[in-house]
Amino acid sequence: MPELTARAALKREQILEAALEAFLENGYVGASMDQVAATASVSKQTVYKQFADKEHLFRALIETISDRVEDPFAEIGREVAEADNIDRAIRRLADEFVGAIMTPGVQQMRRLVIAEAGRFPDLGEEYWNRGFGRVLPTLAACLARLADRGLLKLKDPLVAANHLAGLLLWIPSNRVMFFGRMDAVSAQELAEYTEAGVEAFLAAYKA
Amino acid sequence: MPELTARAALKREQILEAALEAFLENGYVGASMDQVAATASVSKQTVYKQFADKEHLFRALIETISDRVEDPFAEIGREVAEADNIDRAIRRLADEFVGAIMTPGVQQMRRLVIAEAGRFPDLGEEYWNRGFGRVLPTLAACLARLADRGLLKLKDPLVAANHLAGLLLWIPSNRVMFFGRMDAVSAQELAEYTEAGVEAFLAAYKA
Repeated sequence: MPELTARAALKREQILEAALEAFLENGYVGASMDQVAATASVSKQTVYKQFADKEHLFRALIETISDRVEDPFAEIGREVAEADNIDRAIRRLADEFVGAIMTPGVQQMRRLVIAEAGRFPDLGEEYWNRGFGRVLPTLAACLARLADRGLLKLKDPLVAANHLAGLLLWIPSNRVMFFGRMDAVSAQELAEYTEAGVEAFLAAYKA
Repeated sequence: MPELTARAALKREQILEAALEAFLENGYVGASMDQVAATASVSKQTVYKQFADKEHLFRALIETISDRVEDPFAEIGREVAEADNIDRAIRRLADEFVGAIMTPGVQQMRRLVIAEAGRFPDLGEEYWNRGFGRVLPTLAACLARLADRGLLKLKDPLVAANHLAGLLLWIPSNRVMFFGRMDAVSAQELAEYTEAGVEAFLAAYKA
């Protein structure tokens, strides 16, 4: 039995990976269960057995991947909040944040959810709440603590967290979205955008 | 002849409007020329005669709409660049910029281009170049002039222009993209985000 369960879990994983590829390539309407089954190397029956229909498959994909978004900033945020050198603290937070968001996986999901948000607004909202809704309050808590310790000056920690995100991600995330490929931003450019964003944030919010 | 030409131009316009609706609703693969013809109330032959095939129609849509993006900031930018009150100058620039970008037309095109950028990376790049590539240098020139006049302090005007855009648009544009509807941000919220972005920009860049 455990072996069977593991095998079913593996198949489920293969189907979800194939589904991500199919939806990204052809959009929700254009993607077919046939294509997903073929890419996952499983029978069409297996796909239907696990996911009922295309809508259930799409919803399961977004929800499963949203659930995988751990909060990688909880630990880092706690550390950074107690740092003494504010320039280095913000730089570290920025590097970790940009590194976590500017990955193929996150950017692909971003493209897919945006593309289908008109059709499934509830899923877009859920993705927002599980992604932005978890990470930004963590960033905000870290910034609030740095303000309490007299290192930053801010009115609203959540607004400041959003400003940090906007300063860091507006350029590179838009380039990747519009150019349709991760290498639209080189590692060198990403480092330069990050540094410029950190400097602007510090100029605006340093005490 | 002029009447015929005007009629052909009107049909072309109807077809492009119907195409935008179809591509937004069903994605590139899912949209059909039949659907476009029906929505535009023209025959399928008329659609094919004007646009050859679905790819030509899609490309014509993106290019036509890109060409319509006038540069609404050229005039405003020149005025703002000579203003004496820097707080009011940046606030005016921000209001005009946010007002021009946070419209249903621009946000719908944004969603469509992002959705299909994997399939048509050249179109995404063209859309970027005609949109961001025109407006941001105009913003940058305005900021550079304000810096020359001793009212702002900045190293790289284009980076500063991108920072202003990121501070103003990161929150509202993401909400509209992920929630799939313009009213994801109320006019009141948009005004608050704009004011917060202006304050952060001034804190970072005011001389």
